[in-house]
Amino acid sequence: MTAFGKSPERTARELFAEAAGKAYDDAGLSPGAVEEVFYGNFMGQHAEQQGHSGPLAADSAGVTAPATRIESACASSGAAVRLGVERVRNGAADCVLVGGAERMTNLSTAEGTAGLASAADALWETKAGVTFPGAYSLMANRYFHEHGGGREDLAAIAVKNHRHATENPLAQFQREITVEDVLTAPTVCSPFGLYDCSPMSDGGSAALLVSEEFAEERGLDPEVAVTGTGQGGDRMALHDRVSMTRTPAAERAAAAAYDDAGVGPDDIDIAEVHDCFTVAEVLALEALGFYETGEAISAAADGETDIEGDRPVNLSGGLKAKGHPVGATGGAQVSEMTKLLRGDHVNSDAVSDAEVGLTHNAGGTVASCVVNVLEVVA
Amino acid sequence: MTAFGKSPERTARELFAEAAGKAYDDAGLSPGAVEEVFYGNFMGQHAEQQGHSGPLAADSAGVTAPATRIESACASSGAAVRLGVERVRNGAADCVLVGGAERMTNLSTAEGTAGLASAADALWETKAGVTFPGAYSLMANRYFHEHGGGREDLAAIAVKNHRHATENPLAQFQREITVEDVLTAPTVCSPFGLYDCSPMSDGGSAALLVSEEFAEERGLDPEVAVTGTGQGGDRMALHDRVSMTRTPAAERAAAAAYDDAGVGPDDIDIAEVHDCFTVAEVLALEALGFYETGEAISAAADGETDIEGDRPVNLSGGLKAKGHPVGATGGAQVSEMTKLLRGDHVNSDAVSDAEVGLTHNAGGTVASCVVNVLEVVA
Repeated sequence: MTAFGKSPERTARELFAEAAGKAYDDAGLSPGAVEEVFYGNFMGQHAEQQGHSGPLAADSAGVTAPATRIESACASSGAAVRLGVERVRNGAADCVLVGGAERMTNLSTAEGTAGLASAADALWETKAGVTFPGAYSLMANRYFHEHGGGREDLAAIAVKNHRHATENPLAQFQREITVEDVLTAPTVCSPFGLYDCSPMSDGGSAALLVSEEFAEERGLDPEVAVTGTGQGGDRMALHDRVSMTRTPAAERAAAAAYDDAGVGPDDIDIAEVHDCFTVAEVLALEALGFYETGEAISAAADGETDIEGDRPVNLSGGLKAKGHPVGATGGAQVSEMTKLLRGDHVNSDAVSDAEVGLTHNAGGTVASCVVNVLEVVA
Repeated sequence: MTAFGKSPERTARELFAEAAGKAYDDAGLSPGAVEEVFYGNFMGQHAEQQGHSGPLAADSAGVTAPATRIESACASSGAAVRLGVERVRNGAADCVLVGGAERMTNLSTAEGTAGLASAADALWETKAGVTFPGAYSLMANRYFHEHGGGREDLAAIAVKNHRHATENPLAQFQREITVEDVLTAPTVCSPFGLYDCSPMSDGGSAALLVSEEFAEERGLDPEVAVTGTGQGGDRMALHDRVSMTRTPAAERAAAAAYDDAGVGPDDIDIAEVHDCFTVAEVLALEALGFYETGEAISAAADGETDIEGDRPVNLSGGLKAKGHPVGATGGAQVSEMTKLLRGDHVNSDAVSDAEVGLTHNAGGTVASCVVNVLEVVA
């Protein structure tokens, strides 16, 4: 992944080209090896008047192989990873370039918020004034009502994720914050203050997915394999769901990925989950089966998901501190997880026994979700 | 497919729901059978402020299975078909809903043209004033320069495709035009007059792709199978290509699809090709190997691609007369081809011996292209 942060002058194609270049260098491969590209991008048509960005991103990465833009809101590059994995498994390709990019900070906050709002139901949610901080705040308030918990519990998630990112050179925010900072920050949409929300970010991510045979022939040593992948869907609009505090798309994605990898929630050592808002991390931990419904709210406050805890979550800093260039996020989770598992992430030492990692990438209010399981290979 | 035409008051989700409903009825299946959705849409974020339209389209079709928006400009639903075919082949799903929709006529011509322009390189083409009629007119003029031919040859294509559509109840234009009409129409961008250009259209398309086993278990009789699928890529911008009169993305897509199906150009009885502008049909016929480079320009004028010719092309009326709701077009080609091959299209009788059909769906100035081969199954 590129460094995430503010680089409003850089185009999405440029960000993806940088990420792809890093992937080529890391793998010891050249663009000529790539047989297909799945490129995640959410709002290029809004932010850069640029659609058809699959071939454009491929072009910028030196590739003229078949290339397709995959758009599933904030889960765009997670979905791209899944399609790439399937294509390699299918035997249809031996080397697929996946990832994504998003340019956001060239827009004003209002323009950016409007662009992001297109991930909700434009007729029934956006038209009623529901932007994403609003939608997730509804979920948070309903969660408090059903299961208890409060702003302090959510604040602990933001504090944890910021702490994890302090030494991550690619993170947008490399500084600690306190619970006090979170609770006294300007309100965005009650119960969320500024620090409950992931930022607007620019960035790119890329990964080269290769078959075992290809790796062997080329003398590569990938160290980490995607052993399971799953995607789930749900009703689009929040008001059409049975529950506002459960995310069945994530439950289904996790069930599919676990089944695919032959593992269960208890086998997951570390996870990168989609904390676009603090409450989203709570909902993710429950959907993934790490906690029963209504019980993940205190996980961060209790230290369980901390780098020193039983099951560290968002060691990269998460979307909250690493940044959230929408179309790049799912690919960045895979990039960070790969580094964590193979021992070359700044936080790897703290989890040196970790062998199985999971990424959870959600779109909208989790109308779509992709879960990938990554494992260290001998 | 839905009827194509002007229905500016209908949303893309509504158009897709109608198409999906027709697919369910045709197959005798219910939404509960669908295990995955690949939905093609190009400019919903521009025309309806609606992204994340995979889950939304699925929702409108009664499905909460994993659903992903596939965007490859005018090849969006062609790419969706290919991903669906691969997923069924992969054994990952037995029943996949593919297709797409586009709402365009709610926009002014200027807004629509701007939205379509995002399929080109926004920095190097669009910024220089190149909209799509402009880009294809460059290709046409260059073709005339390199290979000869002229406006009359292109006019014969528009006349043929209109004639094919006269009895097609789903076509946007069900009336004949003459060469004189084409040559005297207002100029859009020289050498193109109004009748050289496909229209702005609203519409949806859908197909249910099922495995052989699923069809057998459910007692279905699909009659037609997708036996080959291929996608090709190319440099994004016209000025980055080696030639302005060849479309390597289509050549690669065709080569892959032929190889996949075990057929060659000579085996194709009928074809639906991407005639977004009249010259695009010429380029398609050459890329598909039906004609040598520089030789397809007179195919329509000579009657070879006519309904009574040796190899009829665009019996549906093509994009020119059937209409071109961008995200729906690739799926609509598959829908029309299926009807043609199984004998329930208005033009089926004229090609009752046809057993192998091909669809060619291109994105932008053919920076992406998907070719599918369909065959009658015993």
